[in-house]
Amino acid sequence: MKAAIYRWGHFNAAHRLYNPKWSEEKNKEVFGICTNPNYHGHNYEVVVKVIGEVDPETGFVINLFDLKNLIEKEIEDRFDHKNLNLDCPEFRELLPTAENVCYVIWTLLRNKLDEKYHILVRLYETQRNFVEYPAE
Amino acid sequence: MKAAIYRWGHFNAAHRLYNPKWSEEKNKEVFGICTNPNYHGHNYEVVVKVIGEVDPETGFVINLFDLKNLIEKEIEDRFDHKNLNLDCPEFRELLPTAENVCYVIWTLLRNKLDEKYHILVRLYETQRNFVEYPAE
Amino acid sequence: MKAAIYRWGHFNAAHRLYNPKWSEEKNKEVFGICTNPNYHGHNYEVVVKVIGEVDPETGFVINLFDLKNLIEKEIEDRFDHKNLNLDCPEFRELLPTAENVCYVIWTLLRNKLDEKYHILVRLYETQRNFVEYPAE
Amino acid sequence: MKAAIYRWGHFNAAHRLYNPKWSEEKNKEVFGICTNPNYHGHNYEVVVKVIGEVDPETGFVINLFDLKNLIEKEIEDRFDHKNLNLDCPEFRELLPTAENVCYVIWTLLRNKLDEKYHILVRLYETQRNFVEYPAE
Amino acid sequence: MKAAIYRWGHFNAAHRLYNPKWSEEKNKEVFGICTNPNYHGHNYEVVVKVIGEVDPETGFVINLFDLKNLIEKEIEDRFDHKNLNLDCPEFRELLPTAENVCYVIWTLLRNKLDEKYHILVRLYETQRNFVEYPAE
Amino acid sequence: MKAAIYRWGHFNAAHRLYNPKWSEEKNKEVFGICTNPNYHGHNYEVVVKVIGEVDPETGFVINLFDLKNLIEKEIEDRFDHKNLNLDCPEFRELLPTAENVCYVIWTLLRNKLDEKYHILVRLYETQRNFVEYPAE
Repeated sequence: MKAAIYRWGHFNAAHRLYNPKWSEEKNKEVFGICTNPNYHGHNYEVVVKVIGEVDPETGFVINLFDLKNLIEKEIEDRFDHKNLNLDCPEFRELLPTAENVCYVIWTLLRNKLDEKYHILVRLYETQRNFVEYPAE
Repeated sequence: MKAAIYRWGHFNAAHRLYNPKWSEEKNKEVFGICTNPNYHGHNYEVVVKVIGEVDPETGFVINLFDLKNLIEKEIEDRFDHKNLNLDCPEFRELLPTAENVCYVIWTLLRNKLDEKYHILVRLYETQRNFVEYPAE
Repeated sequence: MKAAIYRWGHFNAAHRLYNPKWSEEKNKEVFGICTNPNYHGHNYEVVVKVIGEVDPETGFVINLFDLKNLIEKEIEDRFDHKNLNLDCPEFRELLPTAENVCYVIWTLLRNKLDEKYHILVRLYETQRNFVEYPAE
Repeated sequence: MKAAIYRWGHFNAAHRLYNPKWSEEKNKEVFGICTNPNYHGHNYEVVVKVIGEVDPETGFVINLFDLKNLIEKEIEDRFDHKNLNLDCPEFRELLPTAENVCYVIWTLLRNKLDEKYHILVRLYETQRNFVEYPAE
Repeated sequence: MKAAIYRWGHFNAAHRLYNPKWSEEKNKEVFGICTNPNYHGHNYEVVVKVIGEVDPETGFVINLFDLKNLIEKEIEDRFDHKNLNLDCPEFRELLPTAENVCYVIWTLLRNKLDEKYHILVRLYETQRNFVEYPAE
Repeated sequence: MKAAIYRWGHFNAAHRLYNPKWSEEKNKEVFGICTNPNYHGHNYEVVVKVIGEVDPETGFVINLFDLKNLIEKEIEDRFDHKNLNLDCPEFRELLPTAENVCYVIWTLLRNKLDEKYHILVRLYETQRNFVEYPAE
C-alpha cells in the first residue's frame, strides 16, 4: 500500500536575477524589476512530497519527525535569512529563479533520503506563483 | 531538466446553470439553487500549470511576466465582472459549469502557448470545490 | 468576564452597482466594470463578532450552534445563490455595495440577537477587499 | 472529455498513536508526543478528487450535491467529534496515522462511488502536513 | 509612537465539554456532539497581540524572538498534544471552551509580560470559529 | 452611518536590521539572523483600513478603485522589488523593522487621503508575524 506524505517548510531570503553573460539592457528586458542590483526578497514556502510504502508497524510512509528535521537541517538552516546570490554557494553559477531553487532543494533532499522513496518538491515564491520539480 | 510553473489569476463573474432542452422541474432537480433565473456569482480563482524545459540562460520554464500577461489578457479581461451566460459567446451553447469553464480556459491558453509546453488548468469556483482539466 | 466570539458564514451571489438617478456615463465613471448590466458575482464571506459575558455554567458567550443556525437562517438562506438586485427586497432602494450589504446583515442579526450582546459584522467581497459595520 | 472535480470536507477528532505490540519506550521513541495516553486532536480537512467524463447534458463529472452529501454521510458524520481510537471500529486494529485515516476514507468512498470514477483522497492533519492515497 | 505586534502559535489538543453539575441529558442538550465522552480535538491557532511603544534603538515594540520563545514555552509546550481536560490542571475546574482556553492563555502571558504592554489573545478553534480575550 | 473598508496590497522586498551605533556583537545579540549583512527578504502583505461615512449616492466609504490605485502608486511602486535599506530614502535613518515600515506606509497614505478618513495599516512580514499602526 503506497501513499504520499507532504510536509511544509519555509525560509525568508533575498535574491536577484542577473545573467553575467548579458548586458544590463538584456537583463532588464528579460528579468524586469527582478534584476534590481540591490536585491529583493521573498517568504519562500516549500512543500516536500514523499511517496513510499506504508509500514504496517508504524502506519507511516516516513516518520514525520525525521522529515521535519531533515527539512530544517538541509533547507531552512541553509537558506533562511540568507542572500541566495551572495551567501549560498549553490547559486554561484546558477540563477536563483524559483525553478532552480526548487531543483537545488530537490537535489539536497534526494541525497539524504533513502532511494526507496520517490520525492517531489513544490516551492512557492509568492502565493501567486510557484514551481515543482520534477514536472509530473 | 523539466519543471512545472504555476501562476494564479482571478475573475468575478455571474452565471446560471440551465439546460434549455429540459423542463423547469428537471433543471431544478439537477441544478438546485444553481438554476436561479436571476443568476448568482463567484470569485473564480484560476491556477495555470505550465510544464517545460528550464532554459539554462534564463532559469525559466516560461517568463512569468509573459504568462501573467497572457492570463490577464485571455482570461481575466474576458471574464472579469461578466455574466458568463449573457456576455460570453463561449457559453452560448455550453453550460457554464466549473468543468466547462475550466475547459474553455484551457482551450484559450492552449491556442496561445507554444506547443512545446504541457498545460493544465485548475479552477476554483469556491474554496471548497474546484476542478482541473485535463484530468491527471 | 467579557469575551468576543466570531463565526464565519458564506454565500454566493450576483449583484450590480447602478444608481438609477444617474446617467449611464456617470454610472460607468463611478462604478466602472461593477455596473455591467448583466451582473457579476462574488463568493461573499461573512464574519460575525459577538461580545458578551462568558456564562460560568457553559463557558460560552453564546452557544455556537445557535449562532451558526442564526447565520444560516437569516443570512445564508436569504442571500445564497441569489441576485441581490433582483431577488432581495433589502436592495430595492439600496445599492448592494459591500458597505450596504454589511449594514443589512448587521441589521438582520441585530434584530434577532439579545441586546445584551454587542455585535460587529465583517464582509469579504473578495479576499482583497472587505468591510466592517459598525466602524471601530 | 475527462476532467477532475475536487470537494472539501472536514471533521474534528481526537486520536493517539500507539502500537500495542511494542513497549511504552518503543512507542515513545517512534511516536513521540503523539503517543500521549490521554489523546490529542486535530481539525482534519479532507479533499476528495473524482475523475470522470464530463456529461454533456449536465456539464458535470459528478453532481456536486451528491458528492457533498456522500462526504457528509460517509466521512463527516462518521468521524466528526469522535475519538478515532475508541469510537471508530475502523481503527480497532489499525493505527490512526494520517496515512491510514486517508486510506480508510478512500475505501469508504470507493465502495459508494460508481467504478467509472477514478478517485484520490488528500487528508490534512494540520496545514503543514498532509497525505494522499493512492500515491500518484 | 505606539504600535501593535502580533505573533502566531499553535497546538493540537483533545478536549470535551462537560459540566459535572448537570445531567447527561442537559450536557447533550447544551454541548451537543462536543460532549462526546471519549473526547475530540482541534488544531488550535493562537494569535497574541502586544501593544507598546516602539523603541527607537531597536525599532521593536517587543523583540519577536522573545515573544516567540514565550509563546513556545508558556503555551505550546504546555498544551500541545495534550488532553485539556485530563492533562492540564488549568481545566480541572474550568470548562475548556474556546472562551476559557483563550482566557487562560491570556492570563499565562499576562503574568510573564511587562505590564507596560497591553495584550490581547485570539484563539482559533477551527477556521470558522474563534474567540478573543479581552473583548474590545 | 460609518463603516470601515479594507484593501490589500503587497510587495516583495529585501531588508536588514542593523543599528550603526552598535557593535557587530550587539547587533547580532539583538537582531539575530535578521542582521545578516547581505540582506534577506519578505513577501510583505499590507492591509489598509479606511473608516468614514457611507456616501448615500455611491454606497461607498471610498471608491475602491481610487484606494487600490493609491496603494499601487504610493506603496507597491515605491517598495516592490526593492532593498529597503539601500533603495528607499525613508529608511536611511530608520531601521526597517515591521513596526517602522508600517508607520512609514501609514504616513505616506495619511498625506494623500482626505482627513475626514480615519486610517489604520496592518503589515504582514510573514503569515506568522504582523504589526499595526496606530495601535488600537
